[in-house]
Amino acid sequence: MASPVLLYACTGIEPEPWIDAFRLHMPELEVRLWPEAGNPADIDYVLAWKQPPGLLQALPNLKAIFSLGAGVEHVLSDHTLPAGIPLVRMVDPGLTTGMVEFVLLCVLRYHRRLPEHEINQKAHRWQALTPKLPQDQRVGIMGLGELGAACAQSLVALGFDVASWSRTPKLVAGVKSFHGPAGLAPFLNRTDMVVCLLPLTADTENILNAETLAALPQGAYVINAARGRHLVEEDLLAALDSGHIAGATLDVFRHEPLPPDHPFWSHPKVTVIPHCAALTQPKTAARTIADNIRRYQSGQPLLYVVDPGRGY
Amino acid sequence: MASPVLLYACTGIEPEPWIDAFRLHMPELEVRLWPEAGNPADIDYVLAWKQPPGLLQALPNLKAIFSLGAGVEHVLSDHTLPAGIPLVRMVDPGLTTGMVEFVLLCVLRYHRRLPEHEINQKAHRWQALTPKLPQDQRVGIMGLGELGAACAQSLVALGFDVASWSRTPKLVAGVKSFHGPAGLAPFLNRTDMVVCLLPLTADTENILNAETLAALPQGAYVINAARGRHLVEEDLLAALDSGHIAGATLDVFRHEPLPPDHPFWSHPKVTVIPHCAALTQPKTAARTIADNIRRYQSGQPLLYVVDPGRGY
Repeated sequence: MASPVLLYACTGIEPEPWIDAFRLHMPELEVRLWPEAGNPADIDYVLAWKQPPGLLQALPNLKAIFSLGAGVEHVLSDHTLPAGIPLVRMVDPGLTTGMVEFVLLCVLRYHRRLPEHEINQKAHRWQALTPKLPQDQRVGIMGLGELGAACAQSLVALGFDVASWSRTPKLVAGVKSFHGPAGLAPFLNRTDMVVCLLPLTADTENILNAETLAALPQGAYVINAARGRHLVEEDLLAALDSGHIAGATLDVFRHEPLPPDHPFWSHPKVTVIPHCAALTQPKTAARTIADNIRRYQSGQPLLYVVDPGRGY
Repeated sequence: MASPVLLYACTGIEPEPWIDAFRLHMPELEVRLWPEAGNPADIDYVLAWKQPPGLLQALPNLKAIFSLGAGVEHVLSDHTLPAGIPLVRMVDPGLTTGMVEFVLLCVLRYHRRLPEHEINQKAHRWQALTPKLPQDQRVGIMGLGELGAACAQSLVALGFDVASWSRTPKLVAGVKSFHGPAGLAPFLNRTDMVVCLLPLTADTENILNAETLAALPQGAYVINAARGRHLVEEDLLAALDSGHIAGATLDVFRHEPLPPDHPFWSHPKVTVIPHCAALTQPKTAARTIADNIRRYQSGQPLLYVVDPGRGY
């Protein structure tokens, strides 16, 4: 059997760490860097991130598409995708670790009232601030996939009162599960800090909007580490300015890079993170992909295949 | 047997939550509020925080002194303390939870480079910052008592490379133990973020000074949540200004409240927290004290008694 060939078609991401990592975890894999694809008939697999539209359709022997990110909407936005080729979402222990760290940091920062301490420091004002007990701090995770479930477990371990909202009911020990359209308002009503980790689909686009933000309690916090299009940005600005929402930490935006004149940059209640809450780590991710390719080559089903109907 | 009597002698701390908590956990305990002590011969126990010097000496039937804080140097600073009366340090699950939250927040904030993100946000600059992997982030905990051990365990659970330094060797799973004067330099040499949770004794006063700060690697961070007198403040300022130390989060200071003209308030690399990293929680702490009083009354030895020789 010829060596398998993988085409690296990731826009704006350095290929070298991936080449090194594949060499380590699958030395027999030949990695080609788009646009140096060679004969299109050679390509067995693609690693894709915002790949050029039409590219995948032109590969006659393609066996699977691996998304470089946990979300796959950047692959699916190419409407010429070849039918019947499995699309695999990224499941990477390094990515999960990064997201757990980021979500714990955001939740603890608001829980321990650090932004208020910073305001007091600027004023040279010595004022102890009593935090809530963690069991009285109601955190809500939207999306309970690989990342959401890991974040929920870490928050439960610290004693927070954690609930989740997802399309279908999900079981994570110690986490109250809400689901579906009917579960959304009750979930939001009991949530002091909402963390969005949803996949971006037609159902979840704009899900953080004037109506859902209003369903959160007065003084709630919003953390979005999923996709910019989950959030109606002007609705969040209005809710921050009315005082209903106390603060927001945003890692993702409708337009990235965030335009220099965007009001989020200078809003005192917004923390802007430039889409680096959790990065796919080539060292750990290449191993998952290599294992999955070996499964496929030995006739086993691929893991983490996206359901085209639900879009994740 | 007459009801036991506890004298509340805590300066600057509201007594009402304590009265409520003792009523719940030990209804038979009579709580008196200094200076309304009544007959000094009635007093069996004292709950002390910066108590008036000489007070304890004047109580002829005193059986034990309970410190309101995890540290006891505020009690021991009274040189007229009655000899032979056990002094009990505070062990409170609520206090431990608070310290774990605080230390995780400080470590994650530096690990995930949040201060750098905040500088970039002020400049409207979109720049992804890659964090270290947690296994490459070397955290060092000074002091491995109740609080230090709990913090170390939480950091190990997140994958950090954790070491400890203490007077005697200590065993916590996954934590490299350094101890004694000879272990201090090797401990500091391998520590990217040092977290001080030591008791304040003659041996530990001024332990964070020009020499020990210089033993940390270039770009290290300092977190002090123990006592202000552990740190030589001018040595930290010099190390921050030279760039050797990248940042510091300080919850405690040599003079509290921190004077309004102190350089820490406006130093761009210092985060000032007004001594509220972890607060003793009357709800959980009164229960520990009540359990300990019951032990004593039934002839069992008291738990958490301070060794006067070592001072904690």
